[in-house]
Amino acid sequence: MTTTADNGVNVQALLEARDVLKGAPEAAQFTWRATSTWEAGVHSTTRIQNFFGLGQEQAHKTEAVFDADHPEVFAAADNGITPIEYLLVGLAGCLTAGIASVAQNRGIQLRSVRATVEGDHDIRGILGADPDVRNGFNDIRVTFTVDADASKEDIEALVAQSQKRSAVFDALTNPTNVAVEVA
Amino acid sequence: MTTTADNGVNVQALLEARDVLKGAPEAAQFTWRATSTWEAGVHSTTRIQNFFGLGQEQAHKTEAVFDADHPEVFAAADNGITPIEYLLVGLAGCLTAGIASVAQNRGIQLRSVRATVEGDHDIRGILGADPDVRNGFNDIRVTFTVDADASKEDIEALVAQSQKRSAVFDALTNPTNVAVEVA
Repeated sequence: MTTTADNGVNVQALLEARDVLKGAPEAAQFTWRATSTWEAGVHSTTRIQNFFGLGQEQAHKTEAVFDADHPEVFAAADNGITPIEYLLVGLAGCLTAGIASVAQNRGIQLRSVRATVEGDHDIRGILGADPDVRNGFNDIRVTFTVDADASKEDIEALVAQSQKRSAVFDALTNPTNVAVEVA
Repeated sequence: MTTTADNGVNVQALLEARDVLKGAPEAAQFTWRATSTWEAGVHSTTRIQNFFGLGQEQAHKTEAVFDADHPEVFAAADNGITPIEYLLVGLAGCLTAGIASVAQNRGIQLRSVRATVEGDHDIRGILGADPDVRNGFNDIRVTFTVDADASKEDIEALVAQSQKRSAVFDALTNPTNVAVEVA
Protein backbone atom coordinates (compact mmCIF):
# COMPACT_ATOMS: atom_id res chain seq x y z
CA MET A 1 0.00 0.00 0.00
CA THR A 2 1.31 3.45 -0.87
CA THR A 3 0.55 6.01 1.78
CA THR A 4 2.04 9.22 3.01
CA ALA A 5 0.68 8.64 6.50
CA ASP A 6 3.46 8.61 9.07
CA ASN A 7 2.41 8.12 12.68
CA GLY A 8 5.87 6.95 13.70
CA VAL A 9 4.85 3.31 14.01
CA ASN A 10 6.94 0.67 12.26
CA VAL A 11 4.00 -1.42 11.11
CA GLN A 12 6.13 -3.38 8.67
CA ALA A 13 8.23 -4.74 11.53
CA LEU A 14 5.08 -5.69 13.45
CA LEU A 15 3.60 -7.51 10.46
CA GLU A 16 6.89 -9.37 9.98
CA ALA A 17 6.98 -10.26 13.68
CA ARG A 18 3.47 -11.65 13.37
CA ASP A 19 4.52 -13.89 10.50
CA VAL A 20 7.67 -15.08 12.23
CA LEU A 21 5.95 -15.77 15.57
CA LYS A 22 3.18 -17.78 13.92
CA GLY A 23 5.83 -20.42 13.29
CA ALA A 24 7.78 -19.84 16.52
CA PRO A 25 5.30 -19.70 19.40
CA GLU A 26 8.02 -20.18 22.04
CA ALA A 27 9.62 -16.87 21.01
CA ALA A 28 6.28 -15.12 21.61
CA GLN A 29 6.31 -16.00 25.33
CA PHE A 30 7.15 -12.81 27.22
CA THR A 31 7.47 -12.32 30.97
CA TRP A 32 7.18 -8.76 32.25
CA ARG A 33 8.71 -8.08 35.67
CA ALA A 34 8.56 -5.57 38.47
CA THR A 35 10.19 -5.40 41.89
CA SER A 36 8.72 -3.35 44.68
CA THR A 37 9.91 -2.13 48.05
CA TRP A 38 7.84 -0.91 50.96
CA GLU A 39 8.98 2.57 52.02
CA ALA A 40 6.73 3.54 54.96
CA GLY A 41 3.02 3.67 55.64
CA VAL A 42 1.26 2.70 52.41
CA HIS A 43 4.05 4.16 50.25
CA SER A 44 6.00 1.79 48.00
CA THR A 45 8.37 2.15 45.09
CA THR A 46 8.32 -0.22 42.13
CA ARG A 47 11.17 -0.63 39.66
CA ILE A 48 10.94 -1.96 36.12
CA GLN A 49 13.71 -2.61 33.66
CA ASN A 50 14.24 -6.24 32.68
CA PHE A 51 11.90 -8.63 30.94
CA PHE A 52 12.07 -11.87 29.01
CA GLY A 53 11.01 -12.35 25.41
CA LEU A 54 12.08 -13.62 21.99
CA GLY A 55 13.75 -16.47 23.86
CA GLN A 56 16.15 -14.36 25.90
CA GLU A 57 16.59 -11.71 28.57
CA GLN A 58 15.71 -8.19 27.40
CA ALA A 59 15.87 -4.77 29.01
CA HIS A 60 14.36 -1.34 28.70
CA LYS A 61 16.93 1.36 27.93
CA THR A 62 16.58 2.72 31.44
CA GLU A 63 15.13 1.62 34.76
CA ALA A 64 11.82 3.27 35.61
CA VAL A 65 10.78 3.87 39.23
CA PHE A 66 7.19 4.48 40.33
CA ASP A 67 5.84 5.70 43.65
CA ALA A 68 2.48 4.46 44.88
CA ASP A 69 0.79 5.81 47.97
CA HIS A 70 -2.65 6.82 49.20
CA PRO A 71 -3.96 10.39 49.10
CA GLU A 72 -4.29 12.65 52.12
CA VAL A 73 -8.06 11.99 52.30
CA PHE A 74 -7.09 8.40 53.19
CA ALA A 75 -4.90 9.77 56.02
CA ALA A 76 -1.75 8.98 54.02
CA ALA A 77 1.21 10.98 52.72
CA ASP A 78 0.33 11.14 48.99
CA ASN A 79 3.88 10.42 47.83
CA GLY A 80 2.52 9.07 44.57
CA ILE A 81 -0.69 8.05 42.83
CA THR A 82 -2.93 5.38 44.29
CA PRO A 83 -2.16 1.84 43.07
CA ILE A 84 -5.51 1.47 41.32
CA GLU A 85 -4.81 4.62 39.29
CA TYR A 86 -1.88 2.82 37.64
CA LEU A 87 -4.46 0.61 35.90
CA LEU A 88 -5.87 3.72 34.20
CA VAL A 89 -2.38 4.72 33.04
CA GLY A 90 -1.89 1.31 31.45
CA LEU A 91 -5.31 1.33 29.82
CA ALA A 92 -4.88 4.79 28.29
CA GLY A 93 -1.39 3.96 27.04
CA CYS A 94 -2.40 0.63 25.54
CA LEU A 95 -5.46 1.87 23.65
CA THR A 96 -3.57 4.93 22.38
CA ALA A 97 -0.69 2.79 21.11
CA GLY A 98 -3.22 0.59 19.36
CA ILE A 99 -4.91 3.54 17.68
CA ALA A 100 -1.55 4.77 16.33
CA SER A 101 -0.63 1.29 15.08
CA VAL A 102 -3.95 0.56 13.42
CA ALA A 103 -4.03 4.04 11.87
CA GLN A 104 -0.57 3.47 10.40
CA ASN A 105 -1.64 0.10 9.02
CA ARG A 106 -4.71 1.69 7.43
CA GLY A 107 -2.83 4.70 6.00
CA ILE A 108 -4.60 7.20 8.25
CA GLN A 109 -2.58 10.22 9.36
CA LEU A 110 -3.20 11.11 13.00
CA ARG A 111 -2.82 14.70 14.15
CA SER A 112 -3.76 14.28 17.79
CA VAL A 113 -5.22 11.65 20.08
CA ARG A 114 -6.37 12.46 23.57
CA ALA A 115 -8.21 10.30 26.06
CA THR A 116 -9.94 10.84 29.34
CA VAL A 117 -10.27 7.78 31.54
CA GLU A 118 -12.51 7.48 34.58
CA GLY A 119 -12.81 4.58 36.97
CA ASP A 120 -15.68 4.41 39.47
CA HIS A 121 -14.72 2.88 42.78
CA ASP A 122 -16.86 2.30 45.85
CA ILE A 123 -14.27 2.31 48.62
CA ARG A 124 -16.56 0.52 51.06
CA GLY A 125 -15.15 -2.67 49.53
CA ILE A 126 -11.49 -2.15 50.43
CA LEU A 127 -12.43 -0.71 53.83
CA GLY A 128 -14.46 -3.80 54.66
CA ALA A 129 -17.55 -1.66 55.28
CA ASP A 130 -19.84 -3.79 53.13
CA PRO A 131 -19.10 -7.38 52.06
CA ASP A 132 -21.33 -7.00 48.99
CA VAL A 133 -19.18 -4.21 47.52
CA ARG A 134 -16.29 -5.33 45.36
CA ASN A 135 -12.76 -4.07 46.00
CA GLY A 136 -11.95 -2.95 42.47
CA PHE A 137 -13.54 -0.57 39.97
CA ASN A 138 -17.28 -0.83 39.39
CA ASP A 139 -16.76 0.36 35.83
CA ILE A 140 -14.33 2.27 33.66
CA ARG A 141 -15.04 4.79 30.89
CA VAL A 142 -12.60 5.89 28.21
CA THR A 143 -13.42 8.76 25.86
CA PHE A 144 -11.14 9.42 22.89
CA THR A 145 -10.87 12.67 20.97
CA VAL A 146 -9.06 11.94 17.70
CA ASP A 147 -8.03 14.46 15.07
CA ALA A 148 -7.08 12.58 11.89
CA ASP A 149 -7.41 12.53 8.13
CA ALA A 150 -10.39 10.22 8.36
CA SER A 151 -14.16 10.17 8.69
CA LYS A 152 -15.92 9.79 12.02
CA GLU A 153 -16.75 6.21 11.00
CA ASP A 154 -13.12 5.42 10.18
CA ILE A 155 -12.00 6.87 13.50
CA GLU A 156 -14.58 4.82 15.37
CA ALA A 157 -13.36 1.73 13.54
CA LEU A 158 -9.75 2.55 14.53
CA VAL A 159 -10.71 2.80 18.19
CA ALA A 160 -12.74 -0.41 18.00
CA GLN A 161 -9.85 -2.32 16.44
CA SER A 162 -7.43 -0.98 19.05
CA GLN A 163 -9.75 -2.24 21.78
CA LYS A 164 -9.94 -5.65 20.11
CA ARG A 165 -6.15 -6.08 20.24
CA SER A 166 -5.41 -4.33 23.50
CA ALA A 167 -3.50 -6.25 26.16
CA VAL A 168 -4.66 -4.00 28.99
CA PHE A 169 -8.29 -3.84 27.84
CA ASP A 170 -8.32 -7.64 27.93
CA ALA A 171 -6.57 -7.76 31.31
CA LEU A 172 -9.21 -5.49 32.85
CA THR A 173 -12.32 -6.92 31.19
CA ASN A 174 -11.42 -10.60 31.63
CA PRO A 175 -10.10 -12.47 34.67
CA THR A 176 -6.45 -13.42 35.08
CA ASN A 177 -5.06 -15.86 37.61
CA VAL A 178 -2.84 -14.06 40.14
CA ALA A 179 -0.84 -16.25 42.52
CA VAL A 180 0.49 -14.49 45.62
CA GLU A 181 2.97 -16.23 47.88
CA VAL A 182 5.47 -15.62 50.64
CA ALA A 183 9.09 -16.58 49.93
CA MET B 1 -4.94 -2.53 71.83
CA THR B 2 -1.59 -1.36 73.14
CA THR B 3 1.21 -1.88 70.68
CA THR B 4 4.53 -0.32 69.92
CA ALA B 5 4.31 -1.29 66.26
CA ASP B 6 4.57 1.74 64.00
CA ASN B 7 4.44 1.07 60.28
CA GLY B 8 3.42 4.65 59.51
CA VAL B 9 -0.18 3.71 58.72
CA ASN B 10 -2.96 5.66 60.41
CA VAL B 11 -5.18 2.65 61.02
CA GLN B 12 -7.37 4.55 63.46
CA ALA B 13 -8.40 6.96 60.70
CA LEU B 14 -9.18 4.05 58.37
CA LEU B 15 -11.31 2.30 60.98
CA GLU B 16 -13.18 5.55 61.62
CA ALA B 17 -13.68 6.04 57.87
CA ARG B 18 -15.11 2.54 57.66
CA ASP B 19 -17.64 3.32 60.40
CA VAL B 20 -18.62 6.66 58.87
CA LEU B 21 -18.96 5.31 55.32
CA LYS B 22 -21.15 2.42 56.46
CA GLY B 23 -23.82 5.03 57.08
CA ALA B 24 -22.91 7.31 54.15
CA PRO B 25 -22.49 5.13 51.07
CA GLU B 26 -22.67 8.12 48.69
CA ALA B 27 -19.47 9.55 50.23
CA ALA B 28 -17.69 6.25 49.45
CA GLN B 29 -18.19 6.69 45.69
CA PHE B 30 -14.82 7.66 44.23
CA THR B 31 -13.94 8.36 40.61
CA TRP B 32 -10.27 8.13 39.67
CA ARG B 33 -9.23 9.99 36.53
CA ALA B 34 -6.44 10.09 33.99
CA THR B 35 -5.90 12.06 30.80
CA SER B 36 -3.58 10.85 28.11
CA THR B 37 -2.02 12.36 25.02
CA TRP B 38 -0.50 10.58 22.05
CA GLU B 39 3.06 11.75 21.49
CA ALA B 40 4.34 9.80 18.44
CA GLY B 41 4.50 6.18 17.38
CA VAL B 42 3.19 4.12 20.30
CA HIS B 43 4.43 6.64 22.87
CA SER B 44 1.86 8.39 25.06
CA THR B 45 1.93 10.44 28.22
CA THR B 46 -0.73 10.14 30.90
CA ARG B 47 -1.36 12.72 33.60
CA ILE B 48 -3.06 12.16 36.95
CA GLN B 49 -3.95 14.67 39.60
CA ASN B 50 -7.66 15.16 40.25
CA PHE B 51 -10.23 12.69 41.47
CA PHE B 52 -13.65 12.73 43.07
CA GLY B 53 -14.53 11.32 46.46
CA LEU B 54 -16.15 12.04 49.83
CA GLY B 55 -18.77 13.96 47.86
CA GLN B 56 -16.42 16.51 46.31
CA GLU B 57 -13.50 17.16 43.99
CA GLN B 58 -10.15 16.11 45.42
CA ALA B 59 -6.56 16.38 44.20
CA HIS B 60 -3.20 14.78 44.71
CA LYS B 61 -0.56 17.20 46.02
CA THR B 62 1.15 17.21 42.64
CA GLU B 63 0.37 16.13 39.09
CA ALA B 64 2.08 12.89 38.08
CA VAL B 65 3.05 12.20 34.46
CA PHE B 66 3.74 8.74 33.07
CA ASP B 67 5.28 7.70 29.75
CA ALA B 68 4.14 4.52 28.05
CA ASP B 69 5.81 3.13 24.95
CA HIS B 70 6.91 -0.17 23.48
CA PRO B 71 10.44 -1.57 23.82
CA GLU B 72 13.01 -1.63 21.04
CA VAL B 73 12.35 -5.34 20.40
CA PHE B 74 8.88 -4.22 19.25
CA ALA B 75 10.56 -1.77 16.82
CA ALA B 76 9.59 1.16 19.04
CA ALA B 77 11.45 3.94 20.84
CA ASP B 78 11.21 2.69 24.47
CA ASN B 79 10.41 6.11 25.90
CA GLY B 80 8.71 4.43 28.84
CA ILE B 81 7.50 1.09 30.13
CA THR B 82 4.97 -0.94 28.17
CA PRO B 83 1.32 -0.23 29.09
CA ILE B 84 0.75 -3.74 30.43
CA GLU B 85 3.69 -3.30 32.85
CA TYR B 86 1.74 -0.53 34.60
CA LEU B 87 -0.65 -3.23 35.82
CA LEU B 88 2.24 -4.87 37.67
CA VAL B 89 3.15 -1.54 39.29
CA GLY B 90 -0.40 -1.15 40.54
CA LEU B 91 -0.58 -4.71 41.81
CA ALA B 92 2.70 -4.50 43.73
CA GLY B 93 1.78 -1.14 45.25
CA CYS B 94 -1.70 -2.24 46.30
CA LEU B 95 -0.67 -5.51 47.96
CA THR B 96 2.24 -3.81 49.73
CA ALA B 97 -0.01 -1.04 51.07
CA GLY B 98 -2.38 -3.70 52.30
CA ILE B 99 0.36 -5.61 54.10
CA ALA B 100 1.47 -2.44 55.91
CA SER B 101 -2.11 -1.58 56.89
CA VAL B 102 -3.03 -5.04 58.11
CA ALA B 103 0.26 -5.35 60.00
CA GLN B 104 -0.44 -2.05 61.74
CA ASN B 105 -3.93 -3.20 62.64
CA ARG B 106 -2.54 -6.45 64.06
CA GLY B 107 0.30 -4.78 65.96
CA ILE B 108 3.02 -6.36 63.83
CA GLN B 109 6.14 -4.27 63.27
CA LEU B 110 7.41 -4.54 59.70
CA ARG B 111 11.10 -4.11 58.97
CA SER B 112 11.06 -4.67 55.22
CA VAL B 113 8.67 -5.81 52.53
CA ARG B 114 9.84 -6.63 49.04
CA ALA B 115 7.92 -8.15 46.16
CA THR B 116 8.78 -9.54 42.79
CA VAL B 117 5.97 -9.59 40.26
CA GLU B 118 5.98 -11.50 36.99
CA GLY B 119 3.34 -11.50 34.29
CA ASP B 120 3.42 -14.09 31.50
CA HIS B 121 2.24 -12.77 28.17
CA ASP B 122 1.97 -14.58 24.86
CA ILE B 123 2.29 -11.71 22.39
CA ARG B 124 0.75 -13.71 19.55
CA GLY B 125 -2.58 -12.41 20.88
CA ILE B 126 -1.94 -8.69 20.43
CA LEU B 127 -0.15 -9.30 17.12
CA GLY B 128 -3.16 -11.19 15.77
CA ALA B 129 -0.98 -14.24 15.05
CA ASP B 130 -3.35 -16.70 16.72
CA PRO B 131 -7.02 -16.00 17.48
CA ASP B 132 -6.99 -18.55 20.33
CA VAL B 133 -4.35 -16.61 22.29
CA ARG B 134 -5.67 -13.92 24.62
CA ASN B 135 -4.32 -10.37 24.48
CA GLY B 136 -3.57 -9.95 28.17
CA PHE B 137 -1.47 -11.82 30.70
CA ASN B 138 -1.81 -15.59 30.88
CA ASP B 139 -1.01 -15.45 34.57
CA ILE B 140 0.69 -13.30 37.17
CA ARG B 141 2.89 -14.35 40.10
CA VAL B 142 3.73 -12.21 43.12
CA THR B 143 6.33 -13.33 45.66
CA PHE B 144 6.71 -11.38 48.91
CA THR B 145 9.73 -11.37 51.17
CA VAL B 146 8.69 -9.90 54.50
CA ASP B 147 10.92 -9.19 57.48
CA ALA B 148 8.75 -8.54 60.52
CA ASP B 149 8.31 -9.26 64.21
CA ALA B 150 6.00 -12.16 63.43
CA SER B 151 5.96 -15.87 62.70
CA LYS B 152 5.91 -17.27 59.18
CA GLU B 153 2.23 -18.13 59.73
CA ASP B 154 1.38 -14.60 60.86
CA ILE B 155 3.20 -13.16 57.85
CA GLU B 156 1.33 -15.50 55.51
CA ALA B 157 -1.93 -14.42 57.13
CA LEU B 158 -0.98 -10.75 56.60
CA VAL B 159 -0.36 -11.32 52.92
CA ALA B 160 -3.58 -13.30 52.56
CA GLN B 161 -5.63 -10.55 54.21
CA SER B 162 -4.00 -7.89 52.01
CA GLN B 163 -4.99 -9.90 48.93
CA LYS B 164 -8.57 -10.21 50.21
CA ARG B 165 -8.96 -6.42 50.46
CA SER B 166 -6.86 -5.37 47.47
CA ALA B 167 -8.49 -3.16 44.85
CA VAL B 168 -5.96 -4.06 42.16
CA PHE B 169 -5.95 -7.79 42.94
CA ASP B 170 -9.72 -7.75 42.46
CA ALA B 171 -9.48 -5.65 39.29
CA LEU B 172 -7.08 -8.16 37.71
CA THR B 173 -8.69 -11.39 38.87
CA ASN B 174 -12.30 -10.39 38.16
CA PRO B 175 -13.83 -8.75 35.10
CA THR B 176 -14.71 -5.05 34.97
CA ASN B 177 -16.86 -3.36 32.38
CA VAL B 178 -14.78 -0.93 30.28
CA ALA B 179 -16.72 1.36 27.90
CA VAL B 180 -14.62 2.96 25.17
CA GLU B 181 -16.10 5.68 23.00
CA VAL B 182 -15.18 8.45 20.60
CA ALA B 183 -16.18 11.99 21.58
